Amino acid sequence: MTPRPADSSTTTDLAILRALRAHPQGHVSGAELAQQLGITRAAIWNRIRELRLHGYDISASPQLGYRLESAPDLLLRDDLLAQLGGTRVVGRDIQVFQQTASTNDIVEKLARDGVREGAVVLAESQTRGRGRLGRKWVSPPGRGLWCSVLLRPRLAPSQATRLTILAAVALARAIRDTTGLEPEIKWPNDLLLRGRKVAGILTEMHAEVEQVRHVILGIGVNVNLEATDLPPELRSVATSLKLELGVAVDRAALLVALLHHLDEGYARLGQGHFDELAAEWADRCGTLGRNVCIRTGSREIRGCAESLDDAGALLVRTEHGHLERIIGGEVTLTR
Amino acid sequence: MTPRPADSSTTTDLAILRALRAHPQGHVSGAELAQQLGITRAAIWNRIRELRLHGYDISASPQLGYRLESAPDLLLRDDLLAQLGGTRVVGRDIQVFQQTASTNDIVEKLARDGVREGAVVLAESQTRGRGRLGRKWVSPPGRGLWCSVLLRPRLAPSQATRLTILAAVALARAIRDTTGLEPEIKWPNDLLLRGRKVAGILTEMHAEVEQVRHVILGIGVNVNLEATDLPPELRSVATSLKLELGVAVDRAALLVALLHHLDEGYARLGQGHFDELAAEWADRCGTLGRNVCIRTGSREIRGCAESLDDAGALLVRTEHGHLERIIGGEVTLTR
Repeated sequence: MTPRPADSSTTTDLAILRALRAHPQGHVSGAELAQQLGITRAAIWNRIRELRLHGYDISASPQLGYRLESAPDLLLRDDLLAQLGGTRVVGRDIQVFQQTASTNDIVEKLARDGVREGAVVLAESQTRGRGRLGRKWVSPPGRGLWCSVLLRPRLAPSQATRLTILAAVALARAIRDTTGLEPEIKWPNDLLLRGRKVAGILTEMHAEVEQVRHVILGIGVNVNLEATDLPPELRSVATSLKLELGVAVDRAALLVALLHHLDEGYARLGQGHFDELAAEWADRCGTLGRNVCIRTGSREIRGCAESLDDAGALLVRTEHGHLERIIGGEVTLTR
Repeated sequence: MTPRPADSSTTTDLAILRALRAHPQGHVSGAELAQQLGITRAAIWNRIRELRLHGYDISASPQLGYRLESAPDLLLRDDLLAQLGGTRVVGRDIQVFQQTASTNDIVEKLARDGVREGAVVLAESQTRGRGRLGRKWVSPPGRGLWCSVLLRPRLAPSQATRLTILAAVALARAIRDTTGLEPEIKWPNDLLLRGRKVAGILTEMHAEVEQVRHVILGIGVNVNLEATDLPPELRSVATSLKLELGVAVDRAALLVALLHHLDEGYARLGQGHFDELAAEWADRCGTLGRNVCIRTGSREIRGCAESLDDAGALLVRTEHGHLERIIGGEVTLTR
């Protein structure tokens, strides 16, 4: 179950893709590739054929050499690592599964096996994808980004909310970078486009009372889902990037942007700059300043969502004038 | 891995032991037992022989019948359930392992398999017993009580401290009931006798940011350890009930008392009476009112341990007059 360390993954395919991507407009000659990789031109040719079988459209010209025309909409570990081009922590290793029950469950196992933080697990589809509070998350094959990230922060359990905030900001930025769309954050952990849910974050932790052992950031994005991929009861409340944009979105590019923003934000968090993240989060949060109804356990709280505190809790001014501090629940906007 | 439900464990042995224990001074006739259990007297006799092989000293008199003279110092599931005589939640099921890596790890697996709360796992010895913050816990065979309890409370992660407090109070009471000794609680999670550690509590949780999924209370008690069972470097700081009392302690009786107090306290917690538990805990806590030095991560805080807050955090008045709120760390008393 333990993934190979990232260093041993610098395979020939990875090196070829990296070299081709370094010349997005031009060509790279077979001789140049062969010399760069220290293998024969015939071996390069064999790998190119293999890559084409995986859906990479690589043109070959006897005069100019090879060029990457397009990459398949597949999540391939080596390709993702090549595009990522190195990060401090998040994405140091990536595992891709065709199908799994839940990527969070796999990362949980990796965590218990002692895998270092930053490992990312992706699945083309999940059979038991989970949302918050044990709810099911629809994860059809090939259409979404279902991933989980292992982190081992030095935080108390009550501070783990900071990682949900980090993830929401990183994901909003990645969606903006890749599509130009500006998602709104719905407290505590959803991303919305035009009021419909496009992504969700499930932060799970294993902790002692005083210290977090590890955190799993589960991130689900409805990337290229069609309306028919969504169960009828969700069609009025959920959407996908493709449904909003009208064209398909490159999942690999979205993932790479997400991991870069997560990595950068995690470093800032470690340096004590949580305030910056929280400020950006609050800017993007559409829940603040609105009248809300929050169901939490058996309680129902109505009032105006005034602000967020340091830990990411929502401060709601109730109809009776009290300020209630709410750490989680089901929010609906009211008039 | 999933334990059998407690109901199917009401075996013949269990019923015989229960009947014998119901008459601690007198005898129970074979005819009475046979009628009560709906089996033949010969079958009763066979089970009695079997129980004797397990170390139960059961005398048989042709006139009077059977009497339980003594029970072995073994942790036997059916016997423990018989002695427990039914609880609301804690101890509804008990599993005993001769040896395991760590009872907390087994309960973690049970929790993920959906086992209901209250399940208790015991081990005669642990090969990788853990203390707080990943430290090793010495758990030699047959001499201690190494157990873990699965709970699924409706609490936020920051409130999980309440269960450590519950466990410390329940354990202190059980030790008092069984031995007459009055242990002192050393914040956050140790029990001391004459300043030496006799028991420890390791509370682990799996949680979402807003809600605990499950908590594992790991409890380790040095019951009948000899000085030579302890590594030389621990002999001046650790002790056992037997070392303090001069005689061996019945581990089963201690466990039964512990589970009763845990069960009662957990019910009180669910009814919102945490304050009572916290008050008893503070009474038993020897850390309050003392000058302490606390190492937490890379920091060292010196001052007077003034009080505890609602969540069980320690409020320390530093030398500079500030009040610091500390949720965990290594405490040493200073002058």
